[in-house]
Amino acid sequence: MTDIFMDCDLIIKGKYVLPIDEKLSVIKDGMVIIDKGKIIDLGEKRILAKKYNGKEIIDAKDSIVMPGLINTHTHAAMSYFRGLADDLPLKIWLEEYIWPAEAKFLNPGFIKQSAELACLEMLKSGITCFNDMYFFEEITASVAEQFGLRAVLGEAILDFPTPSCATPAETINKTLELYQKFKNSQLIKVILAPHSIYTCAGEILKKVKFLADRYNLLIHSHISETKKEVEDSQKKYLKSPIEYLDSLNFLSDKVIAAHSVWLSGNDLKIYQDRGVKVSHCPMSNMKLASGVALLPQMIKRGITVGLGTDSAASNNTLDLFTDMRACALLHKVSNLDPTLVNARQVVKMVTINGAKVLNWDKEIGSLEVGKQADIITINLDQPHLLPLHDPYSHLVYCVNSADVENVIINGRIIMKQREVKNIDEAKIIKQAKRFKI
Amino acid sequence: MTDIFMDCDLIIKGKYVLPIDEKLSVIKDGMVIIDKGKIIDLGEKRILAKKYNGKEIIDAKDSIVMPGLINTHTHAAMSYFRGLADDLPLKIWLEEYIWPAEAKFLNPGFIKQSAELACLEMLKSGITCFNDMYFFEEITASVAEQFGLRAVLGEAILDFPTPSCATPAETINKTLELYQKFKNSQLIKVILAPHSIYTCAGEILKKVKFLADRYNLLIHSHISETKKEVEDSQKKYLKSPIEYLDSLNFLSDKVIAAHSVWLSGNDLKIYQDRGVKVSHCPMSNMKLASGVALLPQMIKRGITVGLGTDSAASNNTLDLFTDMRACALLHKVSNLDPTLVNARQVVKMVTINGAKVLNWDKEIGSLEVGKQADIITINLDQPHLLPLHDPYSHLVYCVNSADVENVIINGRIIMKQREVKNIDEAKIIKQAKRFKI
Repeated sequence: MTDIFMDCDLIIKGKYVLPIDEKLSVIKDGMVIIDKGKIIDLGEKRILAKKYNGKEIIDAKDSIVMPGLINTHTHAAMSYFRGLADDLPLKIWLEEYIWPAEAKFLNPGFIKQSAELACLEMLKSGITCFNDMYFFEEITASVAEQFGLRAVLGEAILDFPTPSCATPAETINKTLELYQKFKNSQLIKVILAPHSIYTCAGEILKKVKFLADRYNLLIHSHISETKKEVEDSQKKYLKSPIEYLDSLNFLSDKVIAAHSVWLSGNDLKIYQDRGVKVSHCPMSNMKLASGVALLPQMIKRGITVGLGTDSAASNNTLDLFTDMRACALLHKVSNLDPTLVNARQVVKMVTINGAKVLNWDKEIGSLEVGKQADIITINLDQPHLLPLHDPYSHLVYCVNSADVENVIINGRIIMKQREVKNIDEAKIIKQAKRFKI
Repeated sequence: MTDIFMDCDLIIKGKYVLPIDEKLSVIKDGMVIIDKGKIIDLGEKRILAKKYNGKEIIDAKDSIVMPGLINTHTHAAMSYFRGLADDLPLKIWLEEYIWPAEAKFLNPGFIKQSAELACLEMLKSGITCFNDMYFFEEITASVAEQFGLRAVLGEAILDFPTPSCATPAETINKTLELYQKFKNSQLIKVILAPHSIYTCAGEILKKVKFLADRYNLLIHSHISETKKEVEDSQKKYLKSPIEYLDSLNFLSDKVIAAHSVWLSGNDLKIYQDRGVKVSHCPMSNMKLASGVALLPQMIKRGITVGLGTDSAASNNTLDLFTDMRACALLHKVSNLDPTLVNARQVVKMVTINGAKVLNWDKEIGSLEVGKQADIITINLDQPHLLPLHDPYSHLVYCVNSADVENVIINGRIIMKQREVKNIDEAKIIKQAKRFKI
């Protein structure tokens, strides 16, 4: 019997292929076939090996092969403030450390170097797509492009002058310019990023909503992160932040609500009714003692929730594996129920649900024929990952970011055997070492 | 000017040497001088480099050099049950998964292989000393010795037959035999390990206490781990587990109380008055939803608390770095106070306080002249560890176990550049892969 082989750009072989499909199947001894940036086939090696001839092959023998991780809430260029100050109340941390440091350092050169460090860290932790809100986002966009990373970016809109823009109107104009620049990009998506209700006047939020509708843009904002934010909103508007935003007709399925820690039953209902998506940031919420989000209730209501690391200034890493673990553990202990937030639910949060949060799930978030090939492999051949009874369990409860071995984005091999391609890692590390507060 | 050099066995150089002394000082560009297994000097390189001539040198340039981590609560030989079952209520997890697996598999061959995997994992995570309670402890002891690991071991005493002993009397005899065998060992310490009040009759606990006094042995037990344990104790004895143990005169500064999650104010006072030491296991407590221990209150009362991973069956790793992070974060969010359980306190828990828990602090737990040289180095030259503003912050909030590069125990280099000396790592990994439930 002769087989007719089909040529393709790349074949990835692995011990456990997790497509993250509806059934959360596990393909043992599997293969993913990639051509022109897209997945054209996947399944068991014994069948596909007879059909395809790869120009390049990644034979990740003792590995998990899965979709790249999606980080739904970051401030990438804050990485240089990692561990600058810890164990402090939010107000002191912000006012005495972060804001003065931002006032002193934020300029295009800083943003470039700090964003490079963030992108390098994220790639090495298996993150293939991140949703960013900060300043000088055109620089972070070009850094992400240079790395070959997928990114959703929004210039932070605030009532007062920012390091990059003098007025909110200027920020909005800048956002729209960026949107025009990147609207045909395969990797970069520009969105609107009003910082929060306590830093954006109602008029600005209405303007944002108007533009989001007009240009079909997503909106990324911090919502109900702290108890104080909710109390202040109750005082000022006699409404919770979510009720207030809803009264402005701001909320829809295009809104990515970062944090969403302090929610009432009515807030949850509004999220559900409007289709608001949530970026849950367990480690940042724990470290700043913001509180425990009502994740089990959100899941029960069918609200789409992804995971976010937040910035390295408050986490203090951009490592979704540590956030996955914190997420699974935190909600069990807070509710005294070990069955809550199981490993499969958490893996979905960093893959397909993360893609849904970013409205990008038609193209990424799972391994499916026709989707873009954003794929990572995780080396299981290590004492802390053996034996393996269930790959989902290991992803959440055992894997470290250092176990990520290969990263493919849009069909391109971006990291091979932990070496990032076409990037001068030594230079980025040297730059970061030189930074002194 | 000529200097007279003194010969020594080993010199370790590092960017930040953390001796974990009273002041928690940081020696920048430091050196640790080791001879005959002990630390004979430490301080700044510019001074010591002129004084010592090392037969061997570890030049850990961009590294933290610190005491090896101490894991105060493990069941090492359960590693083969890692991730066997998750996200389940404790009762189902134990009765339907762990106990049947133990009944089926526990024999000397299994214990040897599973303990080898645990020791390999612990070494690679920077753990140089662990406090173990399980079955066939003579095997785990010999595995630890073979690795060159320091271990405190107690054969688990229960009222009913165990895989290794038919009766509690047999277990106690075995413990005393082990104690005789290892009493002159530099690495192995044998102690008494009554499993818990719900598995050991009062008579057994009294016998244990009698023998502990007679032979000057430590006692390691699970105390007040779950709410149910406390409720059952209240029903049966009209006392909390701690009040009950105190009524047996069981508690003293020789007792290591693992977990200690559900404590009343009076329980805390008893711990404080009797000098009981605690092994806090945040990740295991979170995963099994046992509850949140009152760590800030214990610290306030001056109770000595170390960290424990518990077993890989419930954690699911033996990685104190993940437990350090969980510990710092959990208590902040549970108390809505970001200042609680700061990085320095957590680092002390895995070093000097861990040594105090094991009553071994005269010899290990800090880098001090005259102490045994149990030392690890952590490679900082990586994107997720840059920039560095404070090494303590990084240890708790950023470092992964994979960043541990060198491990020295009792002055011997046990792991160099992540390669474990004199141990066939490939064989241990192959064995673990072969294990199927």
